[in-house]
Parts: sequence; structure tokens; C-alpha cells
Amino acid sequence: MSAGTGERAPDRPLSREEQVLERVERARRRRARVRDELVTLAHGAGGRATRSLVEAVFLEEFRNPLLEPLADGAVDGDGLAFTTDAFVVTPLFFPGGDIGDLAVNGTVNDLAMCGARPLHLSAAFVLEEGFPVADLRRVAASMARAARAAGVEIVTGDTKVVQRGKADGCYITTAGVGRIDRPGRLSAAAAEPGDAVIVSGPIGEHGVTIMLARGGLDVEADLVSDTAPLTGPATRLLDACDGVRCLRDATRGGVATVLNEIAESAGVAVVLDEEAVPVRPAVRGACELLGIDPLYVACEGRMVAVVAGWQAGAALDALRAGPLGEDAAIVGRIGADPPGTVLLRTAFGGTRIVDVLVGDPLPRIC
Amino acid sequence: MSAGTGERAPDRPLSREEQVLERVERARRRRARVRDELVTLAHGAGGRATRSLVEAVFLEEFRNPLLEPLADGAVDGDGLAFTTDAFVVTPLFFPGGDIGDLAVNGTVNDLAMCGARPLHLSAAFVLEEGFPVADLRRVAASMARAARAAGVEIVTGDTKVVQRGKADGCYITTAGVGRIDRPGRLSAAAAEPGDAVIVSGPIGEHGVTIMLARGGLDVEADLVSDTAPLTGPATRLLDACDGVRCLRDATRGGVATVLNEIAESAGVAVVLDEEAVPVRPAVRGACELLGIDPLYVACEGRMVAVVAGWQAGAALDALRAGPLGEDAAIVGRIGADPPGTVLLRTAFGGTRIVDVLVGDPLPRIC
Repeated sequence: MSAGTGERAPDRPLSREEQVLERVERARRRRARVRDELVTLAHGAGGRATRSLVEAVFLEEFRNPLLEPLADGAVDGDGLAFTTDAFVVTPLFFPGGDIGDLAVNGTVNDLAMCGARPLHLSAAFVLEEGFPVADLRRVAASMARAARAAGVEIVTGDTKVVQRGKADGCYITTAGVGRIDRPGRLSAAAAEPGDAVIVSGPIGEHGVTIMLARGGLDVEADLVSDTAPLTGPATRLLDACDGVRCLRDATRGGVATVLNEIAESAGVAVVLDEEAVPVRPAVRGACELLGIDPLYVACEGRMVAVVAGWQAGAALDALRAGPLGEDAAIVGRIGADPPGTVLLRTAFGGTRIVDVLVGDPLPRIC
Repeated sequence: MSAGTGERAPDRPLSREEQVLERVERARRRRARVRDELVTLAHGAGGRATRSLVEAVFLEEFRNPLLEPLADGAVDGDGLAFTTDAFVVTPLFFPGGDIGDLAVNGTVNDLAMCGARPLHLSAAFVLEEGFPVADLRRVAASMARAARAAGVEIVTGDTKVVQRGKADGCYITTAGVGRIDRPGRLSAAAAEPGDAVIVSGPIGEHGVTIMLARGGLDVEADLVSDTAPLTGPATRLLDACDGVRCLRDATRGGVATVLNEIAESAGVAVVLDEEAVPVRPAVRGACELLGIDPLYVACEGRMVAVVAGWQAGAALDALRAGPLGEDAAIVGRIGADPPGTVLLRTAFGGTRIVDVLVGDPLPRIC
């Protein structure tokens, strides 16, 4: 990419400034066009293709300061947070949850990742003709339970029905508004060299559970989805530490995708310690069989926090002090070089790049 | 339904109180169960089946004071309005608009019907694998234009992709938050005998345009969708009149459905004057050929206003003074009896009941 760009000798390493410029240029080019003429499953996977499509089409057309960070939600000058998520998970019911609590927790978590307490939720349903009313009732009951658990209500909604073969049972889009009571704003761009990277619990359980629930795999594993509201751990963390740079729930694309977004937004390196990343043996085993890396597998009740290095211990204590944070771990740190990159120090003492997700190993995971 | 309920002689007409009680009982029974075991297209039509499903499943599970009125949006104690709509219209592109501006205007209008000015919009996409990126770009451009016209921005979103055959190109769910600056709240339950019923313009253009765009009908008509933001006319009306009881945009199920909801919510009769209802000749002609009543056909840029009778003239002047209100008309009045009923005084001097929509004459109209 930088070949032939001038005075730099081919063997001289890029300076920090050159690296940042190159990163910006790469992002600009990616924005300018999306390579594919047709939408593919990869465009919905949350990785590189999703980002390209969103930047080339939606950001290009809608561009405004609140949308531009492409974060989990938008936060306006009055501290009002606003977010939305569409849910197309298959199967609709799986161990530990269903599309209903997933849809509520997903939006509650996006608000929590903005540092907001949830005020209200909306829910819009696209139903396929022939969908059992009993299943819809089960989904609605699950949404109601999840909303109660998160201390929020579904105050408005919509229901549309499409002909058989024009949907897959039930799709749900939730939106949420929340209120940020604290000064300061969380931002992936705020990560700084020296910060600590924390995950709130073991990763990959939701994605692996969905894969196993789809059957066709002769794997026995005692796994349930991790779908849960993150308002509690997020609040504990923000109450305990004023040095929280950003919170991100590790959904589509998993922890690896979130860390790549942080690395790119802040122009920093993220250095992960493989042995420190909490992965349950059942998840690790299933991932080995499936040939996928747990770092890319969706969680629906786990978050990544970047916290000022000197507050890492306090942050960990705060997370571990309550539900959904007992197994929190410091998994790495923010470094300076190479900017825009996630590096993994492997258990064998090597280092490899954890790249952005390409393609979609697990379509319709949420 | 009241047969055998006691002392009332079979030929004595029901008293006002008995009628109201019967109406309440009818609604309670409807809420308790939804008759169908499978979701049908009628459940998405906005009429009786939709109402039953929403009450039996969603209201039953989610019940809370903000949701309960089942209005166009929810308004909290701080004057924050919140609303959502899913859009599954087919075809995606039609004369006068496409799914993009429809999705923006629909949510902007729901906010306007709450008396709110729009603050922010969200947009979530469910795309079918193989959908042309060029079409998505066209939809996004149309959303951006509609948002600019309504003075609002799309600040957050989500994109999901499902396999071929699991959607129909592109479904969009928008949500919106708005702010109510005026004291007092609009409510369908506030309609009172003596009030005037106004529509902001000719009805049925969106629905008929969609029907014609689907082809298969040998009808030539110079019609375009009426999709438009109603913030302007709603603001003019609310600025001019403090006696506005409620505003409702006449989307799925048309003016007839909105009026039935008002009649039921307020326990009043709505008496329409057939000759006063503005219907363009092309819409009237197409409806005759299709065998449908324009009163049930969706509009996407027309509203029904119920206004204190003594302010009817001022309200009409305010609507007519600007865009999207030039052809506003007083189409009827609120009466006391029979409660929960919409009556139409026909051009021939007769009277007929305009009942709630049953079935779905026009599936996927929005």
C-alpha cells in the first residue's frame, strides 16, 4: 500500500506518524467503496465486511457527529443515549435463552456500554405468516422477564407480518433510550498506551451454544448462552473507577472484533495475553472441533473494558464484587505500536496478529 | 353477547352506561385470548386481528402505563416521546417514494402525532443475502433526504443479513425519540361529543399507489404515494389551537381504523360525512375496481385530528395555511351514541357503520 509513496527507504520501518497516516488512508479508501455488488452473509457478521458496508453506504449517506463513532449507541449533548439492534438469531430458542431475552439484553447492553441507565425500550416484530402464536407468547414472556431484570419497560412497539417464505419465524428489532448521569463520555478513541484491557467473564458461550443448538455437530457440551444485562457490572465499574476509557459488549465478531475497533479508533496497539483470556473448557473444546477461534465468537453478556492502568486492580475488584463479573480478568494492555493492531502473546511465548474478522463463520448468531 | 345477562327486556335499547360496560367487557374478552393458533397476514393489517394479537400477547406480557394506550408512541413524564415502526413494504420502490423515506417519515409522523418534535432516529436493517448494494445505497440516500426534510438525523443503527429466502430484500425498523415542548398530552381517549374530526388531506393515495405498483391490475392512474413528514402541519395545528384532543396518522387500516380506535378509546361515536371526506378521483376509481373502501386504505402523510368543535375553523385554517394541509377538510364530528362506533352518513342520506378492519385487503403496504 505504501509502495512507491516517496522518500521512505523500503527497509526503513514506518514512523508512528506514518503508520497513523497510513491507517487513516486505508480507512478512507475502505469507506469510499464497498467491493461487493450484492449483500453477502459476511456483511452481517460484524467484521470487516460489515464495517465496509456501514461506512460506504450508511455513514456516507447519514453522516453526522453522533453516528460517526459507529459505537454501540449514540449519545447527545444532553446525555441522552439512543441505540438499536435487529435480532435474527436461529434457532429462536436455545439453551439459556431465546430471541426475546437476547433482543432485550442486547439493547440494554448497548445502553450500558454508553454508560447509560436504560429509560425505555421499544420492540418491533417482523413475523412470518404461520408462526405459532404460542411461540410468540413465549418470546414475549421472555422479553418481559429480561426487561424486568434490567429494570426497564417496553413502552412502544410495532408488529408486521410477511408471507410464508419471506422471513424465518420471527425477527425482532429493539431500540432503547437511556440517560447518562455521569460527566465525561466513554469512547473507543480514548484508549491510551498503558491502559489495561479487561473482560468481564469467560468468552464465547453464546456463539458456541447457538452452533451446538443448530445440531449437525456430534458435540456434547454443557453450555448455555451467556445472554444477560450488563447494566450491573458496568455501573459497578463506573462507580469505582473514573479512569474507564470505554466499554464494549463483545457480540458479533467477539472480543477480537471489539479490540480491533478500539485499536483502530484510538490508533493504538492492543496486546493480549492468550493465557489470561477466560475461556471455559467446553467452549474451548467445541471451538477446536469447529475450527474457530473463541476470540471471534459472540458473547451476549460479556464486555470488554479499557481502564487506566493504575486503576486496573480497582476495576477488577469492582467487577468481581457482583453478579456477571465474578470471573472478570485482565487480559492485556494498550500499547503504542503498531497502531491499529491487536497482538496476541501466545501461551508458547510467540506473538501473532489477531486480525479483523473476514467472512462469517457463524451467521445469524444474534 | 348481552343475551341472557339479566333483567334487561330484550327490546329495551341499552342505556349509555350499559353500552359502555358492554364495550369494556368485549375488549376484556378480546384481550384474554387470540383466536388463531398461527400468525396470519391479518395480524399485520392494523385492524381487529392486529389489535387482538397485540393485546393478548404483547400488552399482556409487557403491561405498563406508557404502553397501555397503544398509541403511535409512548410519552413519559418528562415529555420524552419514543416510538418504533417496522417496514416490510413491497415493492421496495414505488411512485413517490421507497421503503427508505417511508421508514423515516413513518417514525417522524408517530412522533408528530404525540405532539413531539423529533430529536433522533435509529435505523436497523434486515437484509436478504443477494440484495443489490446499489439498491441499499438508493434506500439509504432516500432515508437521508427524508431525515433532512424532517429536520432530524439518523444517529444509530444496525445491519443484519439473513440467507436467501429468509427475507424479501430489505426490511427496515426505525425508532425515534422526540421532545414535547407543550403542556398537556394528546390522547385518543380525550375525544368528546361536540368535537370536530378533520383530515389533513385526500386519503388512500399511498395504499392505492402500492397496489398499482405491484402490477397485475390493468389500471392506469396518475398516482404517487403521499409519504411525507407531518411535523409541519401538526405543529401549525398545535400552535393555533389549544383544543386539539388527538392526532393520528392514518396508516395501516386507514382513516376507518384510526376513527374506530378513537371511538373505542373515548367511548364516543364518530359521525362521518361521506361527501366531506377528500378522496382524489384516481383513488376513488382504483378503489372501485379493487372493491375496497378508501376509508380503509393506508396513507403515509395524512393525519386525523380531533379538535374542540369551537376551534374547528381555526384548526382548518391552520392546516390549510401550509404544505401538506392545503386540502384539509372537516369530515365529521364526535357524538355520544352509540359509544365505540363509527357511523357514516352516506351521500344518499343513509347511515352505515364503518366497522373495524377484518382480514387484510392490502398486505405489506408499509
